[in-house]
Amino acid sequence: MRTLGIGLLGLGNVGSGLVKLLEDNAEAIAARLGARLEVRRIAVREVDKPRMVEVDRSLVTTDVEAVLADPAVQIVVELVGGEVAAREFVLGAIERGKHVVTANKALLAAHGDEIFNAAERRGVDIFYEASVCGGVPLIRALRDGLASDKIDEFIGIVNGTSNYILTRMADEQRPFDEILADAQAQGYAEADPGLDVDGWDAAHKLCVLCSLCFGARVPVTEMLVDGLREIAPIDFDYARRIGCVLKPLVIGRDHASDIEARVHVAMIPERWLLATVSGVFNGVYVSSQALGPSLYYGRGAGMMPTAVAVVSDVIEVARDILSAASSGLPLRLRIRDWRERPVRPRGELVSRFYLRFRVRDRPGVLAELDGVLAREGIAVREVSREVGETVILTTQAAREQAMQRAFEGFARIDAVLERPRLIRMMD
Amino acid sequence: MRTLGIGLLGLGNVGSGLVKLLEDNAEAIAARLGARLEVRRIAVREVDKPRMVEVDRSLVTTDVEAVLADPAVQIVVELVGGEVAAREFVLGAIERGKHVVTANKALLAAHGDEIFNAAERRGVDIFYEASVCGGVPLIRALRDGLASDKIDEFIGIVNGTSNYILTRMADEQRPFDEILADAQAQGYAEADPGLDVDGWDAAHKLCVLCSLCFGARVPVTEMLVDGLREIAPIDFDYARRIGCVLKPLVIGRDHASDIEARVHVAMIPERWLLATVSGVFNGVYVSSQALGPSLYYGRGAGMMPTAVAVVSDVIEVARDILSAASSGLPLRLRIRDWRERPVRPRGELVSRFYLRFRVRDRPGVLAELDGVLAREGIAVREVSREVGETVILTTQAAREQAMQRAFEGFARIDAVLERPRLIRMMD
Repeated sequence: MRTLGIGLLGLGNVGSGLVKLLEDNAEAIAARLGARLEVRRIAVREVDKPRMVEVDRSLVTTDVEAVLADPAVQIVVELVGGEVAAREFVLGAIERGKHVVTANKALLAAHGDEIFNAAERRGVDIFYEASVCGGVPLIRALRDGLASDKIDEFIGIVNGTSNYILTRMADEQRPFDEILADAQAQGYAEADPGLDVDGWDAAHKLCVLCSLCFGARVPVTEMLVDGLREIAPIDFDYARRIGCVLKPLVIGRDHASDIEARVHVAMIPERWLLATVSGVFNGVYVSSQALGPSLYYGRGAGMMPTAVAVVSDVIEVARDILSAASSGLPLRLRIRDWRERPVRPRGELVSRFYLRFRVRDRPGVLAELDGVLAREGIAVREVSREVGETVILTTQAAREQAMQRAFEGFARIDAVLERPRLIRMMD
Repeated sequence: MRTLGIGLLGLGNVGSGLVKLLEDNAEAIAARLGARLEVRRIAVREVDKPRMVEVDRSLVTTDVEAVLADPAVQIVVELVGGEVAAREFVLGAIERGKHVVTANKALLAAHGDEIFNAAERRGVDIFYEASVCGGVPLIRALRDGLASDKIDEFIGIVNGTSNYILTRMADEQRPFDEILADAQAQGYAEADPGLDVDGWDAAHKLCVLCSLCFGARVPVTEMLVDGLREIAPIDFDYARRIGCVLKPLVIGRDHASDIEARVHVAMIPERWLLATVSGVFNGVYVSSQALGPSLYYGRGAGMMPTAVAVVSDVIEVARDILSAASSGLPLRLRIRDWRERPVRPRGELVSRFYLRFRVRDRPGVLAELDGVLAREGIAVREVSREVGETVILTTQAAREQAMQRAFEGFARIDAVLERPRLIRMMD
């Protein structure tokens, strides 16, 4: 039986999970594939660091170049993360005719075009199932399962840390900072949580999904990206009262003219399936023309879930190698026609809004707030004067730019004690 | 650009959907595949029947053999349904070296072994995404996405008609017969509804899933299969009171020693994700060792959803043909080691039970019912004396065979006016 060689870049959590899965399931994989898979070189930053799995020390090196150049390596698995070094390594692997499996959404979001083009020129595969929703085979579902369909829209919960924090805030009625600190202590959030709670990790994944679903390059810098630092327990109370929950969403829509791409917390009806996606779990709702709605759910992070996705990709690349599929066929990632599609400007995006104000407790404030909104053409839907200084106000659908101008108006109202908080609403 | 030829057997709903999808998305598919797909022969029972799509009359024939033998046909799509003729056609196609795509779960459940073996000997593909959950790419997810994982359990709602009937019974508090008649009038249920409401369609799909997930052949005749004809509005009331909903499930579990396979309605907690799978929708919850829980949701039937799955399979077969993958590699269906695994006998299956009795309204009945259950070692958990003649009783976990013997005991109690109704419970 033939053996295919894997070169592993990075031996952290996911790399260790990969080594473990390949060992534990070696027989099953060989039976399925008709070939063996073997990790032949492993590049790490520190050779002597303690690892979660036992590996043959002679395989381990700090020299990435040695891994990429090794003729016994056919498949390079990039698990170093980040954008700069990873880009160099992945392009280096492609250059040497190696197929690449990566879990790196930041890399794909920043340099996807360059990498996919290089791979196409060189006739090698790039697989990236683990980059979105961890072990949930979402990329496969969209790429192969819906290959004959046209995707119109997807709405996803793709950042487990954000979902975990919002779920616990809802359950325990405690403020963001406390829950974040807890999550950090338990390892559910990074010491530097910005990538997760400010929406950038989700934005990277949204970028990958827009490429895959719409064939559109949507730079992260052109998306509406908003995090969850300003959400407070009172927002959950209000949401509950109107039958909603708060979820950290990515939303992609293919309008005839342009692509809508946004990352933010939203109030969604509790009867939606996505409303039941809780804790660290991920879920993506997809709407396509022939199939209609479908949904994919599971763990979006963690050592073994992510490793499952990486190894499944490795198996598929190995199949392609064994059948020489990659010699002439177009890359699998090019599921849709790839076109330069305009991105809908942030200011043009439309939502209903929930606004929470802290105001001086005196008569006439509501008229002032409504006045500001009315000047921007925004209609108020409901007003709720909470205890003390809090006023909550929801609006009809309005453009982001109109709301932004309204915020300038609010700033000029004496009775408004601080910048209002804003949550977008969906129904 | 090369063109691959499709021979279509059957031009009903799904066949028409396939023709439409191939036409509507011809450019996108060609771009993705690097080849064109063309329907070159269509076998039907009546040439002159009106069709949902326009097809070139010269392609249509009543002679299946002519389709199978046509050298311009590389891929045969079997959409005739049923077991006997379909078996002959599929084996005939394989014999002639054609790759096969089928949506026929009844065929795979009854003759899967024979067909898969024939395909393996002949070195052709058999793809069957549309056989379970229609357009939801469940088969792909299990086969490719979890290729490096080990599946322990799945619980699925895979029969849309049953789910539709139970959902409407729950919403409208109307009896089974009325809702079934409505469903038939609206085309959601067949004139002969037995395949759906007695659980056999689900059993066929369970058989396909057991093969795929556990590598185990579980004949439908060895499964626990129970339908939904005996469910009544009062059962929904009770379920609601204990925070449960009624769902038509298939359940497969890989015990170390044997395989558990069952089809029946169950009371499940309303907080489960599956509890939110309503109407004609399907959903399958999967638990695997590395990934943990995952869930796949969408339309399990209908012309276009099913056609999406069939065309996705055709595209994948076409890829294999273009890359000559099927010449040496093992079939994709053989994802797990294929072993003869014992099936856990029906009598050994364990559940909690809900029992609904119609009894003569006199003191002492409860003692008699409890006495019968106690003799079989079954402990009562809750008793609810409903208005009039109805007694509802739930039990602790017990074996099916003990419950069966208890039913013999109930039959000997004077005060029990008819055979009790039984629903299994999960928590």
